Amino acid sequence: MMNFNTNPEPIINTRLDEMLKSTLPALGIDLGGTKIGACLVSNNRLINEPKQYKTPKGSDNILEQLYKIIEEYKVDNLMAGVGIATAGIVDTASGSVIDSTFNLTGWAGTNIKNYLESKTMLPIYVENDGNAAAYGEFKAKGSIDNLNTIVITLGTGIGGGIILNGNIFHGSNFAAGEVGHLKINFDNKRLCTCGHFDCWEAYGSGPGLVQTTKELLNEITASQSVLYANKNDLTTTHIIKAFENNDLIAKRAFELWHHHLSVGLVTIAQILNPKTFIISGGMSNFVNYPLLKEMVIDKALATVSRDLEIHQSGLGIHAGIIGAGQIALDTILAKS
Amino acid sequence: MMNFNTNPEPIINTRLDEMLKSTLPALGIDLGGTKIGACLVSNNRLINEPKQYKTPKGSDNILEQLYKIIEEYKVDNLMAGVGIATAGIVDTASGSVIDSTFNLTGWAGTNIKNYLESKTMLPIYVENDGNAAAYGEFKAKGSIDNLNTIVITLGTGIGGGIILNGNIFHGSNFAAGEVGHLKINFDNKRLCTCGHFDCWEAYGSGPGLVQTTKELLNEITASQSVLYANKNDLTTTHIIKAFENNDLIAKRAFELWHHHLSVGLVTIAQILNPKTFIISGGMSNFVNYPLLKEMVIDKALATVSRDLEIHQSGLGIHAGIIGAGQIALDTILAKS
Repeated sequence: MMNFNTNPEPIINTRLDEMLKSTLPALGIDLGGTKIGACLVSNNRLINEPKQYKTPKGSDNILEQLYKIIEEYKVDNLMAGVGIATAGIVDTASGSVIDSTFNLTGWAGTNIKNYLESKTMLPIYVENDGNAAAYGEFKAKGSIDNLNTIVITLGTGIGGGIILNGNIFHGSNFAAGEVGHLKINFDNKRLCTCGHFDCWEAYGSGPGLVQTTKELLNEITASQSVLYANKNDLTTTHIIKAFENNDLIAKRAFELWHHHLSVGLVTIAQILNPKTFIISGGMSNFVNYPLLKEMVIDKALATVSRDLEIHQSGLGIHAGIIGAGQIALDTILAKS
Repeated sequence: MMNFNTNPEPIINTRLDEMLKSTLPALGIDLGGTKIGACLVSNNRLINEPKQYKTPKGSDNILEQLYKIIEEYKVDNLMAGVGIATAGIVDTASGSVIDSTFNLTGWAGTNIKNYLESKTMLPIYVENDGNAAAYGEFKAKGSIDNLNTIVITLGTGIGGGIILNGNIFHGSNFAAGEVGHLKINFDNKRLCTCGHFDCWEAYGSGPGLVQTTKELLNEITASQSVLYANKNDLTTTHIIKAFENNDLIAKRAFELWHHHLSVGLVTIAQILNPKTFIISGGMSNFVNYPLLKEMVIDKALATVSRDLEIHQSGLGIHAGIIGAGQIALDTILAKS
């Protein structure tokens, strides 16, 4: 039996606290190598105009900048907490960066959570940017039959985030989802920026498409493709423009690029049997989704490809901010 | 406050029931294409001598045989339930086989759980054989820091079972872990038994090793390898024997086989960042584990390979029986 009327205030306070927590927004921050994006997030979406800041050099300056951003938002807003998406491998339990990328030198070893919680007095949650974006995409889609969703980011590299049974899957060292470095070949054909050969990223990223096109250009004469003139300073922009003008080499390069992308997707699908692939990042705008789906079906077992969906990101460049904010909201709610 | 002494019997009965459930063994059954293995299982191990039965032809006859085996064990034993590991893709919720392999024709569409529960009055749990074996290996290892364990079965094909956060990961259509058909190449070089090109299985299985060796033999003369004489009827046994006698082609074939195995392992490691790979199946006896580990380290990001363990199965051919029985025990315990 419940104990009535001896001291009702704590109960009411707890409820008010819970109500506030479930309606307050969180601040989502996406920390990249050159800029920092921030916005208030609620119900899996941005609730005002996102702001952008420059990423300063050095980990102390980055921490200071993050602190300033949070304080700036605190002036006019009540917030449940803050979610921060950062490049690098993140120990989400301690809120620190274990391994950083070349974009953020000195960032590894930084305990973001401890520093910012003690200064802002707000709960802080830190997540790898690929994982945060994946969570944002997954939650925004809001479909309960898509509990296994893999988000692939195609840009200057290939990144990933893995949602299994509705949760971010982190792996044993918080390094799961580094799908750019799965192998799509075993012949030591092409070197990846990571220092190893045959990574998916070396073929499926923007620079991968450029490299594939260069190899095709080596086999033709100047009159056969407009791209020949740009052989030494070739960019994805050149290739896309040539493709739109029906240049044969550009068309062949795009076909090969889709083939390379499909091989990586089939491999992930065979291992994890996901329901959905969401393709994000700058290069996602140039994917022919029906063609890619067809190529995946051609290479995968029917049990794996039958119900598989492949589509472009719905959140675009804001996926990281939304995901980071929503991780904060969902974690706080689960704790209350 | 609790309500004392009005009707104590149900509480005691419930407790007795729970106690019995947590101490009784389960019957583990491993249904293969040619034979059925069965044994009582408790605490992640066999508790008596496993028995073997022939697999009859046709799904009705298989169901009847499974029923007879359970009844045979019921005569002398109290059992908490029965776990059945079967080839094919299994809907573990309904306990039915969704997709079967060529080894068990007509098995797809069979609801094993319904049929056997109504006839034996025991709780029946059905699982894919690769998943059951993986669960058995994982539980037998009993290490709480190995919550992410991938079991790879190397034999006439490559199978797999994926344990994530301590549970079997099934994927969206119960088809996760079909790792034999991840791609390790994109050049349509070698056709797999599944009808697609470049699957891991086409290189890493026993027949894959044979095919690699045949390709090497095509480039030499009869005097250069003892294997040349068996070029047209080559088996893994020939290759292993020649390897033991330091035949150069056999040694090169084994090195390539390890290379092919390592590419698939690296791919899985990059996606899932597991703590442990356990290698089982007939071909696992011929793996040089330090060499394989070295090759994986050479190809993977350090964050993924640093703490990675690769070792041979501890349960051998009984992993399926133990896993099936333990799944029954753990599921029953979780429900009580």
